[in-house]
This record gives sequence, structure tokens and C-alpha cells, in this order.
Amino acid sequence: MDGRAPGKSRIGILTSGGDAPGMNAAIRAVFRAASECNIEIVGIRRGFAGLIDGNLFLMDRSHVANIIHQGGTILGTSRSETFKTPEGRRIAADVLQNAEVDALFVIGGDGSFRGADLFNDETGIPTIGIPGSIDNDIPGTDFSIGFDTAINTALESIDKIRDTASSHGRLFFVEVMGKSSDLIAIESGIAGGAEYLILPDNKHAMDDLCSRLTQAFDAGKRYAIVVVAEGACPGCSFQIAKEVSSRISMESRVCVLGHTQRGGSPTARDRVLAAKLGVSAVNAYMKGYAGVMVGEVRRSVILTPFDKVITGRQKPEPNIIRLSHILTK
Amino acid sequence: MDGRAPGKSRIGILTSGGDAPGMNAAIRAVFRAASECNIEIVGIRRGFAGLIDGNLFLMDRSHVANIIHQGGTILGTSRSETFKTPEGRRIAADVLQNAEVDALFVIGGDGSFRGADLFNDETGIPTIGIPGSIDNDIPGTDFSIGFDTAINTALESIDKIRDTASSHGRLFFVEVMGKSSDLIAIESGIAGGAEYLILPDNKHAMDDLCSRLTQAFDAGKRYAIVVVAEGACPGCSFQIAKEVSSRISMESRVCVLGHTQRGGSPTARDRVLAAKLGVSAVNAYMKGYAGVMVGEVRRSVILTPFDKVITGRQKPEPNIIRLSHILTK
Amino acid sequence: MDGRAPGKSRIGILTSGGDAPGMNAAIRAVFRAASECNIEIVGIRRGFAGLIDGNLFLMDRSHVANIIHQGGTILGTSRSETFKTPEGRRIAADVLQNAEVDALFVIGGDGSFRGADLFNDETGIPTIGIPGSIDNDIPGTDFSIGFDTAINTALESIDKIRDTASSHGRLFFVEVMGKSSDLIAIESGIAGGAEYLILPDNKHAMDDLCSRLTQAFDAGKRYAIVVVAEGACPGCSFQIAKEVSSRISMESRVCVLGHTQRGGSPTARDRVLAAKLGVSAVNAYMKGYAGVMVGEVRRSVILTPFDKVITGRQKPEPNIIRLSHILTK
Amino acid sequence: MDGRAPGKSRIGILTSGGDAPGMNAAIRAVFRAASECNIEIVGIRRGFAGLIDGNLFLMDRSHVANIIHQGGTILGTSRSETFKTPEGRRIAADVLQNAEVDALFVIGGDGSFRGADLFNDETGIPTIGIPGSIDNDIPGTDFSIGFDTAINTALESIDKIRDTASSHGRLFFVEVMGKSSDLIAIESGIAGGAEYLILPDNKHAMDDLCSRLTQAFDAGKRYAIVVVAEGACPGCSFQIAKEVSSRISMESRVCVLGHTQRGGSPTARDRVLAAKLGVSAVNAYMKGYAGVMVGEVRRSVILTPFDKVITGRQKPEPNIIRLSHILTK
Repeated sequence: MDGRAPGKSRIGILTSGGDAPGMNAAIRAVFRAASECNIEIVGIRRGFAGLIDGNLFLMDRSHVANIIHQGGTILGTSRSETFKTPEGRRIAADVLQNAEVDALFVIGGDGSFRGADLFNDETGIPTIGIPGSIDNDIPGTDFSIGFDTAINTALESIDKIRDTASSHGRLFFVEVMGKSSDLIAIESGIAGGAEYLILPDNKHAMDDLCSRLTQAFDAGKRYAIVVVAEGACPGCSFQIAKEVSSRISMESRVCVLGHTQRGGSPTARDRVLAAKLGVSAVNAYMKGYAGVMVGEVRRSVILTPFDKVITGRQKPEPNIIRLSHILTK
Repeated sequence: MDGRAPGKSRIGILTSGGDAPGMNAAIRAVFRAASECNIEIVGIRRGFAGLIDGNLFLMDRSHVANIIHQGGTILGTSRSETFKTPEGRRIAADVLQNAEVDALFVIGGDGSFRGADLFNDETGIPTIGIPGSIDNDIPGTDFSIGFDTAINTALESIDKIRDTASSHGRLFFVEVMGKSSDLIAIESGIAGGAEYLILPDNKHAMDDLCSRLTQAFDAGKRYAIVVVAEGACPGCSFQIAKEVSSRISMESRVCVLGHTQRGGSPTARDRVLAAKLGVSAVNAYMKGYAGVMVGEVRRSVILTPFDKVITGRQKPEPNIIRLSHILTK
Repeated sequence: MDGRAPGKSRIGILTSGGDAPGMNAAIRAVFRAASECNIEIVGIRRGFAGLIDGNLFLMDRSHVANIIHQGGTILGTSRSETFKTPEGRRIAADVLQNAEVDALFVIGGDGSFRGADLFNDETGIPTIGIPGSIDNDIPGTDFSIGFDTAINTALESIDKIRDTASSHGRLFFVEVMGKSSDLIAIESGIAGGAEYLILPDNKHAMDDLCSRLTQAFDAGKRYAIVVVAEGACPGCSFQIAKEVSSRISMESRVCVLGHTQRGGSPTARDRVLAAKLGVSAVNAYMKGYAGVMVGEVRRSVILTPFDKVITGRQKPEPNIIRLSHILTK
Repeated sequence: MDGRAPGKSRIGILTSGGDAPGMNAAIRAVFRAASECNIEIVGIRRGFAGLIDGNLFLMDRSHVANIIHQGGTILGTSRSETFKTPEGRRIAADVLQNAEVDALFVIGGDGSFRGADLFNDETGIPTIGIPGSIDNDIPGTDFSIGFDTAINTALESIDKIRDTASSHGRLFFVEVMGKSSDLIAIESGIAGGAEYLILPDNKHAMDDLCSRLTQAFDAGKRYAIVVVAEGACPGCSFQIAKEVSSRISMESRVCVLGHTQRGGSPTARDRVLAAKLGVSAVNAYMKGYAGVMVGEVRRSVILTPFDKVITGRQKPEPNIIRLSHILTK
């Protein structure tokens, strides 16, 4: 990679952690906004691991052509143990300095911002975060890029299940993603008209579920759809289904959506959010901010220091919880 | 229809004006929330026209089963000239009173709320509005039910056009809906990575567009997608395309999305919004409100008196306009 | 239900066994074609079980309005043990005779045609079959209604998985349906560009898969997608994934599509096939055929006696197997 | 581009004419099958025009990674006037010989095969065709790559229109593609449950349509969807709609699908077909065939000499025409 053009500055950009639909739209927005400001963009492949390996390239217009609608991330992603060490971050800083890169943009989740925070503080290289995560569990933004696509993906599957459920009867379990957050389960459950949600922290779910289902089937209901948040145990809904089936004597079927929820072309909402946050990140850099994440809260773009992002907790809208009680029980 | 069960109250519900995806999810949410409160729901077919004709039926659970994902409205809709007259509204009130209906819920746009406002004031029958419109032009709510689905529908078409545009080259015009509002064009244009937007009130669009396109094609660009808001003239993009093609000597193709944007299964966002607003409308009625529309502003549910809705003007987010300048030019 | 109109004959229609997308389009086609011939259609709810229970209704135009695009079956379906007995079939015949129904149309799979064959022979009520099954395992037709939709549903999930797989690396297992038939796995695997298929009768799959994957990852490949036919063991791909992961020391993820493959709006191909076969079934009845299934073989509609359908075996296209060897390994 | 590896032969591949979804899957299948046979593949950008310009590159595995699901063609396409001249074809042959390319594969429609036929005869460079066209108007194959995707795209729009049509009433015109062929209109019309088709060669359509619609609306029907084949006049359905509206005094709305039908991710059917034909083309070349197109007829792969392809006429299945009369009128 050649040296920086005279009078230009350079921003390095990477995607980190779990990929999320809309990351490409964010990369494109950063590139476009930076170009307007005469800033060069250096793509870094495979996240912090690639940064440490020096996997960098100068991006031009062709790299962001025809990517706005693609799921995944053209830069690739990874999890890096080395970047968690001061030595790893030191190497990363050297790589950037050798490539004459002035700042680092990180698109990822709160885990990634932990490293970005240390990197910003230790190296003095201004680092800015853009929230991308299907889980929507990042403080400092109402929505993270990828969440809207993920719930629509889950919803499409629930809709298809309803077709066959309402034709044939029976009990269906649909397992959706969500490690630290229940939001995919809650919103896709409300939107899909699910009869019941099983969330990881609900200890009494099983008894409650069985008694409600028995009541409902006794009252003439012929089918029910239960949305299960995978929590710490992907695939466990097979076990849950088996237990419920045996307790209430009703056949059940399971589907586990898994990583389909990370893929697919991003929705309009995710792309518009990616556009907003990408452009705002460039603006924040131009104004001299560092060590912050851009987010959208109550429809305004705000900046939150990384340390507040990584120690905070995203609070689910109280409305949503109440809604799920009324509409999905 | 039999008389009201003892101790129960009754809400009539209708959909009015242009239909929008998610109206069925709103009807279902109203029914579900009302059932919790021991309130009966009377469905009114074909909007105000059907109300005047007495086209009413008592809804039960089966009417709202399996509708949450359906586009359109199971109640049908229409535009009624008669309801615009005091006599028409008088008849409507009599119909409701004969059916022992205590309140009226109207799902529709600002045109429908004009009638609802007069009806509420003249008859004393408490009337509550729920905003449903693909145009997202209703004051008192950040989003109206149906808008998110409409922009995703437009977006899917733009994505498909890009496949062929990038393979073959050429200039493409995609005409999207939007009478009083440009938001479908703006958001689908940003999300779709369109090169240019033509909005109804932009007088210099043609010159500007031609000079930009000439510049871009001279610089090596091989294709461009222009999103046109239909404004007051559906189909006019054929004329625009012809003129641009002749001025810059480049072949062009047109597609007119038309009413496809009103159809389709509602997105997760539209269904969750419909759930929120439907439940909130029942809550508002229970608390004694009347003559108001429920809406969501900066993620909180609020009530706005009809007269403010119909005299107000929905302001587009300033961010969005600026974004469209940076990203679509 | 009133008696038959003078001069008209009546056909009863039911859907049986596992539901499949396009069954509604077939019901509509039968209704439309029968109406042209002055024949009344009696809908039978919930398959043979509903027939025995007398769950019948005279269909009119409104029953088939707006159903052509709906997944599932508006008539419902079930599996009936009683119909497997001569007594059960005797009752069923009585029900039809009391309702003045002259013939029975059965939309379903080969299991359903077993009962239909006996019913036709024992009761003399002319019975005609229309093949509907996502498995495409019915002899006498190149494609059964629902198969095309099912492979497209599986394909959409594989495509989404590829987005995230190519971004993050790793090994993915996608479990698709298919009890007696591998065709969903084979065709969705070819169409999805899967790296490997695991079919139920392939004993050496595991060793072969592990050695191929090791080779591929050693050669620089970063991800792989394996399509698994569920065979007799839904959910078993979790076990397979665990074993492979441990043997080749590579993280893996699983998704189980389950009954999503039975749902969803039918594809154009399934609807056109449903139209063809529905109309042809009415023609066959008009010409006096009985005890046969309509099917499409090499693009011609043919009739196959039930006994050949239920004893035969659908042969997969030899091309397809070879293709999967070249393209998916 | 370096010279050929010792002992290897080289095939050049290009896409020509109108692009069609599934062309990328065909390119991938050719590459994969050729690799098995130790043959190198040279990609030619922008069709015959690019061939004459020497726009060639040696393809490796990375070029066909992640393209199976992409609409359009990664090679680009164009129409070339120069290739229609003997001089143009002479230059093209020189380009191939200089690049040590032994054979040419052309993915396109019958227009492209006209040039391919002359090229094969004049230059002795073995040329093989693979049918790709959304119009499905190529003799020698039951289906061309892209047709299935195009009708599903048209169908999705018709389904969305039905949502709003059935909610609001009114008359809708949906204009679909099809210059020389009516098949998109016919199959999407049947699958979409359209009330009427207007095909280019139907002189009496207008009178017939108006009288049928009047009859239907008088009998209580509230909406109708008319599918119009664009024929030689894209956008003309606005004129047709205006005339019909005025003759029968009913409001109408129009949507023009245009090039959306060329885009989108290919369906399973189109990808499997592309796989079959791509692999078969390589087989045909290995066996020494030249001047032929591969196609699938009644589920068998066959070869048809180019001159029969370009002078022949694809006959629509008689069944389909009859079906459309019964089901769409």
C-alpha cells in the first residue's frame, strides 16, 4: 500500500465479533462520507486478528460498489485473543502507523468495544465505534445494525410455521438467537403472534407453559407456536419440546433458526441506520472525538464514551415487555 | 347482531382510506387487548361507507386468527363522500347506537381523522385514531403503520434493478409512491444506494440530474438508478426517462412500483408498531380519552388531539434529508 | 348442507397427510374447473378424519377467493387411524352418500392414496388423487405439489448461512426435511452450493466428510456448509456436528429448518402444477376415470392407478445424483 | 494472462444479450466441471463486445465463490454490432487464439446464438451455447435459465397487488415483460390468479376485457387484476388502463414491473437448471461437439445445432394456454 496522498488523512476500518446484516452498508457509508471530506479509507480484513497480521488494503470506489444489499461483511470478521493483550494492541498500533493510518473505526458489539477502548487509551490512535449486532444489546443506541434484519428473518420462519400449524394442528417450538438479550425472541414473538415465549431467565416457564397449553387445547385450540430464546444452549429446544410433549401428551416439532438470523440482505431500517451511523462516525472524527461509539437514541444521533458502553446495560423498552404479556402470554 | 352482553362495553373498529400493511395486526391487537378488558369488538366493513350502510358484525377470536401476517385489511376500506356531510355522520352515529356500540376506533390516515374529529365532536361517541398509512405523513407519530413495509418493498425492487443494471449498464428509473410525502423515495433511495432522487417539489431536478449523470458516465460509471417519487403524476417517470435519455444520449428503462407498495406481509417493525398502538388505543379508551390519535414519538406512546393531527405537518427528520444528499446526491 | 341442485353432480375434496404449499391452489383449480362443468364442490375439513366425522360444507366462490397464494391448506389435514379400517371407510362412504356426493378427490401423498385406493375399490365411489407432498417421493409424477416451494425455502436459509459463513469462517450444518426421500437435501444442496451432503443411507458419510473437510481447510478454505437430510432423526445434526467438530477440531454451528419447509406462499412452479393437476383431475372424473392419481411426467399429464402409485418407487433423476457429486462433493 | 498450463485446454466463457438470473450459477457450474477435467476457464467481460476488446482474465476458484445466489452476471453483458460483421468475428477469433483459448461458451438467448453459430462455422473454434433468457423463448430447451425467477418475481408483485385490491376494490393492471414470448404473462397470470391476460397478438382483447369486467362487477365482484404482456410497448398499460377505465367507469391503477424481472437471486429451479446445463456443456465439449446448444427437454439433456435453435420456434405447452383460459379467462 502506498503512502498517504499529500494533505489527506486516513481512517482504517474493520468489522469485529459476530457479523450482522448491514455491516456492509455501514462500510459503504463511511467510505462515501470520508471521500466527501477528502479522507482515504483503509480496509482491514478479519477484524483485530487481521489488523495484527497487517491484512490491510486501500479501498477505492469499486470496493463499496454493489455491497449495500449484501449480508455479512466484505471485510470478514473474527475474534482475536492476541488483541486482548497489551502486546497485541501495540503491534496493531504499529501496523496502523506504518500504513500511515490516523484513526480506527470498529464496527461490532460491546465485546469489540472493550478492546477498542483500551486501544484508544493506550495508543492515542483515535478510535470510534459503530454498533453492529443482531442481539441489540449495546448500550448507547436504541438499535444496533442487524437487529431489524434478524427479527424479520425469525418472523418469516414463524409465519411459515403458522401455515402448517394451522393446517395440521400440533405444538411447534421455534428457537431463535440471543445470548445476552431476549429481544429477538420478544419482538419476533410479538410480531409473529406466538402463543408463548421461553426466555433464558424464566425459571417457571415450563410449568407455566404446560398449564397454559393444556388449558388452551382443552378450550379447543388446535395448535400453538412457542418461541424459545436459545440463551446459552443452542439446540436445547429439542429437550424442552420433548419434556412438554410428554407432560401434556401432544406431539411437537422443533425448528432451530441458528445463524440464518445473521445472514440475508439487510432491511431498509438496518441500511438507513447504517448510513446514519457511518456518516456520523466520520463527522465525529472530523470534530476531534475519540474513544466513543455513535448511536441513535430516540431518533437523535449521540456519542457515548466506550467505557459507558461496556459497563452499561441496554434496557429493553418497558412497553415491549408489557406488550408481550398481553399479546403472547 | 345480538345486544351487548351485560356489563360489557363495545368498541366498533374500521379501516379507512388507503390500506396499509399492518392494519390487520392492529385490528388483532385491539381485539386482544379489548378481550382482556372484557370489551366486545364490532367489526365494521368497508370504512365509513360500510358504517353508514350498517355493515357490522360482532368479532370473535376466529376473525383475528391467522391475520397478523396478512397484508391489506380484513375489514376492507373505502373513501366515503357521505361521511363528509353532517347527515352522513348522523346516520353513522345512529347505526352505532342501534348496535349498542360505545366507541369508534379508526385506523387510517389524516384524511380519515378529519371525519373522525367531526364525528367525535358532533355525536359525543368517543373516537380514537390509529395511524395507518404507507406515506408516513401523519403528524403525531414518528412512523405510521405500513411505512416500513412499503420502503422494504420498494427496496427489494431497487435491489433487483441493481443486479441487471450492474450487469448490462444503462440508466434506470424506479417510480415509487408518495403523494404528499417524499419519505418512501428518500428512505428507499438511501437504503437502495440510488444515485439520484427526483422529488415532486424539485424544480431543477432535470437539469441537475442530466449534468450529474453526464459527469458520472464520462468518469466511467456504467449505470445509474434514479428513484422518482410519483407525486401527483403516477406513470410520469416514462416521460422523465424519455427526456433524460434524449438529453444525455443514453438508453433508459422504467419501472413503476405502484400499488405493490401497499401490499405484502407486514414487516416486524410494522407489526410491533401495530401491536403497541392497538393496545395503547384500548388503554386510552379505558382511561376516558376521546378525539385523539395514538402515536409513537421518540419511542414513547403519546396521544394527539385530532385537530392537531389534521392541521399539523409531519416534519421529516433533518438527518434523513442530509443523508440523502451525501449518499445519493 | 342442502341437497344437490338438479342436474348437477358433486365432488367432495379433502387434503390428507402432511400439508404442502400449493394445496390451496389445487383446491381452487378443482373448484374453478368443476364450476365450468356445472359440478358442485363439497369441502371436507381435516382429511379422512373429518370425512368420517361428517365435517363437510358446500363450497362457493368466496371459499376459494384469495387462497391461491396461501401456504398450508384451508381444509386442514390430519392422519386418521379409523380410515385405515374397513368400518371407517364404510362410515366415510355413508357420509358422502348422505351428502349426495358422487366422487372423492384426495390431495396428499402416497400414504393417503393407500386409503384412497381401498376406498375406491370397496365403495365404488370414484376416487381421484392429486399428489401433494414436499418430499417429492410419489411415483407417477415428476414433481409433487409443494416440493418446489420446500427447496426454495431450504435454499433461502442456506443462502443466509453462506453470508455469515463467508464472513466469519467455520463449519455449518443445515438440516433439511426428507423422510423417505433425499431430494430436498440434494436439490437444495446443489442450488445452495453446499460443500457436502449427508444422506440417511450413506454409512460412510462421517469418515468421508471429515477427511474432505480436513483437506479443504488445510488447503485454505475458511468455511463449509453441509446439508443434512433429517431422515428418521430430526435434530440429529446437533450430534453429527459435535462429532465432526471434535474429530477435525473446528467450531461448528447447526440450524434445523424443520416445518418451515412445509409453509410459506407457494412458488409459481407449485401453483402452475397445482392448476394443471387440479383441472386434469376434474377432466379425468368427467371422462369416467376412478382409482387413479393425476401426475405430470415429462411435461405431460398422465393418470396412474393407485396400486401402481403405492407399490411403485419414485426414481430420482440420474442426472441429479451425478450433478451433486460434481458440484457438492 | 499467462499461457496455458502444459497439458491443459482452455475454454472462454461469456454472457450475452439480456442478463438473466442464474447466469452466475451456470458460470460456476462450468468452472467446477471444467476443473474436474483439468480445463482452464477464461472469463470474458461484457459479452462479444468485450471479447473483441480483449477483455479476458483467467478465472480461479475465488471468482466463482459466493456467486451462485447472485442475480445478474459477474461477467457483464452487452449487445455488439461489431460481432455481427465477419471482421468483428475475425478479431474475436484472433483474441481467443492469442490467449490460447480452445473453445467458446456463450450463455445467452437466440440472438446471441446467431452470432455464435457464424463464429463456430467461420473460425472453427468450437462454440457451445447455454440458454439463458427470462423470456423462455429459445427452441431446444423446455426452460431457459432465468425464466423461473422472472415469473416468481412477477408473481410476488401480483400477490401484493391482490392484498390491496381485495381490501379497497378497483381494477389493477400489472405489466410484465416479454417481447417475443407471452409466457411470463401466462404463467404469472395463472399462478397469481389474475382475472384476465392481455397478450400482444390479441386484437380483440380490449372489447372482450371490457365486457367481461362489466359483467363481473355487475355480478358483485369488487376488484380485478389484469396481467399485461409489455410486448413491443413498455409502459403502454397506462394507456390501456385509461381506456378501460373510461369505457367501464371504474378507477384503475397500473404497475409496470420492468427490469425487476431480470434481477433477484435465482430460484432453486433456475440454479439446478444452470448446474445441469453448465456441466453438460463441458461434457459436450469433451466429447467433441461444437456449434450446439445444450438444453433440457422433457427432463433429458439434449444438444441442438445452433441453426435449428435460431430458425426454430419455441412452442408453448398446449396445456398452459388451455389452463389460462379456464383459470384466468
